[in-house]
Amino acid sequence: MEYIETVRQYIENHRNDYTTLLQEMVQQPSTAGNERGIQNLIADRLEQLGLQVDKWQLDYDMLSKHEAFCASRNDFEGSENVVGTLKGSGNGRSIILNGHVDVVPEGDLEQWEDEPFSGTVKGDQLFGRGATDMKGGNLASLVAIEAIKASGIQLKGDILYQSVVEEESGGSGTLAAIERGYRADAALIPEPTNMRMFPKQQGSIWFRVFIHGKSAHGGTRYKGVSAIAKSNVVYEQILFLEKERNEGVTDPLYKSNPIPIPINIGRIEGGNWPSSVPDQVVLEGRMGIAPGESIEKAKKEFENHLAKLSEIDEWFAKAPVKVEWFGARWLPGEIDEDHDFMKTIRQAYENYKGKAPQIEASPWGTDGGLLTQLADIPVVVFGPGETNMAHYPNEYIDLNHMFDTAAIIAETLILWCGVEQ
Amino acid sequence: MEYIETVRQYIENHRNDYTTLLQEMVQQPSTAGNERGIQNLIADRLEQLGLQVDKWQLDYDMLSKHEAFCASRNDFEGSENVVGTLKGSGNGRSIILNGHVDVVPEGDLEQWEDEPFSGTVKGDQLFGRGATDMKGGNLASLVAIEAIKASGIQLKGDILYQSVVEEESGGSGTLAAIERGYRADAALIPEPTNMRMFPKQQGSIWFRVFIHGKSAHGGTRYKGVSAIAKSNVVYEQILFLEKERNEGVTDPLYKSNPIPIPINIGRIEGGNWPSSVPDQVVLEGRMGIAPGESIEKAKKEFENHLAKLSEIDEWFAKAPVKVEWFGARWLPGEIDEDHDFMKTIRQAYENYKGKAPQIEASPWGTDGGLLTQLADIPVVVFGPGETNMAHYPNEYIDLNHMFDTAAIIAETLILWCGVEQ
Repeated sequence: MEYIETVRQYIENHRNDYTTLLQEMVQQPSTAGNERGIQNLIADRLEQLGLQVDKWQLDYDMLSKHEAFCASRNDFEGSENVVGTLKGSGNGRSIILNGHVDVVPEGDLEQWEDEPFSGTVKGDQLFGRGATDMKGGNLASLVAIEAIKASGIQLKGDILYQSVVEEESGGSGTLAAIERGYRADAALIPEPTNMRMFPKQQGSIWFRVFIHGKSAHGGTRYKGVSAIAKSNVVYEQILFLEKERNEGVTDPLYKSNPIPIPINIGRIEGGNWPSSVPDQVVLEGRMGIAPGESIEKAKKEFENHLAKLSEIDEWFAKAPVKVEWFGARWLPGEIDEDHDFMKTIRQAYENYKGKAPQIEASPWGTDGGLLTQLADIPVVVFGPGETNMAHYPNEYIDLNHMFDTAAIIAETLILWCGVEQ
Repeated sequence: MEYIETVRQYIENHRNDYTTLLQEMVQQPSTAGNERGIQNLIADRLEQLGLQVDKWQLDYDMLSKHEAFCASRNDFEGSENVVGTLKGSGNGRSIILNGHVDVVPEGDLEQWEDEPFSGTVKGDQLFGRGATDMKGGNLASLVAIEAIKASGIQLKGDILYQSVVEEESGGSGTLAAIERGYRADAALIPEPTNMRMFPKQQGSIWFRVFIHGKSAHGGTRYKGVSAIAKSNVVYEQILFLEKERNEGVTDPLYKSNPIPIPINIGRIEGGNWPSSVPDQVVLEGRMGIAPGESIEKAKKEFENHLAKLSEIDEWFAKAPVKVEWFGARWLPGEIDEDHDFMKTIRQAYENYKGKAPQIEASPWGTDGGLLTQLADIPVVVFGPGETNMAHYPNEYIDLNHMFDTAAIIAETLILWCGVEQ
């Protein structure tokens, strides 16, 4: 297939142009509510490319009625979705290339070597919040489409390029695209897997646990009950649940993860005066949901486990902890390893890299859970960039991996959608 | 001594008036920086009573140069000290009646049954922030002076009624009174001891411990090091130090305190995202300082103890905790149990109550440490109200105890200052 060589050559020849484009994308500080700049840039680009472009603001009133809705906002001002459709000639399989443009906040500025939204290039690395999570992946998808167009290849199946918002806060952008009726025979999400392939994605939910104590003056602290001391007990009990849950995970795709579905305690806060015994501590964390596991079942397991605290420490009989489920939530998703789409993307990878890809289950959630569970679309997550860059200072993307991924996505499109000869 | 009967009768006859006055005092919301209202009320009252009144705003520039200075403010706008002097006829021993008018913030309003500054009376209890800590005690001192005046008793020694600010934040009010030159042969502080007598007062200092971890995504939490998990280790280590320090306290005055000089962890905060492994936790707390113990020595002990964390967990060799001493600090204080002033006040108590007082060492600091350590004034802390009311919602004072205390203070003044026949 000589056009595959043409596509690869196109990508190789345009590295500089696309590096500049990625810089522009990263320089858009598209935290939640501030996605308009990047979405206009993407929509313009897709239009110039001749795609049919649909841009719309998320409708809170409509979305919030959906049972899968999960967001920390109550309006979506400034947050538009963009979907560009490249129609095929017909009789081909269609594909969604889904990626989010929202980025998490830059965090502690002191820890950044450059400005968080600088897009600075150093050697093969491009730095900035969102470079890895996931503007690099989004660009890889875009490059793939542009390379196919530029190479004069006419595909049979449709390509839907979905540039969505709100992934970091519960997936309202992808939910809105589903509700708007977008469907395809498969979806690829180029989240940072470090070019591993994830046919299964872990879901996750956020919890908040309220732990009670009894106040007293610090000078007579023995008259009180420290909620911090009690939170240590709760912490241990949660670790114990994590251990129990993970003993039940036998999926070989998790074999390289020491804890396949972790429970992470991410925040703690309690007490209000150094000289007082603290009477409340709040823990916040994230519970991993195994592919195929029901979120409701997992919640019950967590709640029942903490209800047993009184067996360890009778204080909890008097002052039971309170569990709240809040904030973001990602549905788990999975497709069969032998699914045609997996075969296709694996083939594209092998053709390009000359070796088999690493296939794993994801340690985190993506919008793929929504696409699979609500719209029955088979999803594979495969993208450039490393997870441990995402959400941290000095986030960067390796440009070589990004262009490699673009070439593999391009070939996937060709193999999946089919070429009109 | 028939005039003692007169004094007691006066107090008994004026309970209603003084209850109303205490209501007015409690209704002044005299948190730090807002003491002007109550201080004007007190100054006017002392003037009407014929005392020589000195009212002045604390001078930050002058006080902040003092080595014992400790405050969270950098100006004292709105915070005046008031000292009223009742001159004796001469040749008597003088006394300071010291009490602070600043109160701690009302805290969670939801937990208050009435408005925090209501001064509501229910049966023998008067409710409101500051009722116990320590406007009830202040009123007891004032009632004692007024009863003596009203009974036509001329004392030989001077009485200095000190209505000070800033006790809750490190004692700048009392420091300012010392710096202004006020001295006496003894001082009584009617802080809420529940009518026990405290010839020794525990000091205290505040610490902040920074505990470091290593960030990672919660889905791969095993790649990080949780600062919350490490804070549990630090917590245990601090408890161990507390145990060690208290084994060394043999003073019989502490026999009814299970932990004579406690170390209290009052606040915890760490992490910033449920899905991230927290890379920092901050603990804040209060370390009790034994009467007679040096603050510098105690600080060193604490720091050295935490430096040993790496022997328990090698993570701390890589990421040592950081200790900071901040905020308020109370100097410890003590006088001999056989000091004349102790004898006098004990006598007054026994005359009134017909039994010996309970003598203990205080589980918390007062401005007494400053008076003793800086101005060499023997101090006894003795007042109405219970410590475990102070700083909590629905704070109240038992009016019977307050008037009992007033009678005992009045008799103390008579016995200590001497009566001109």
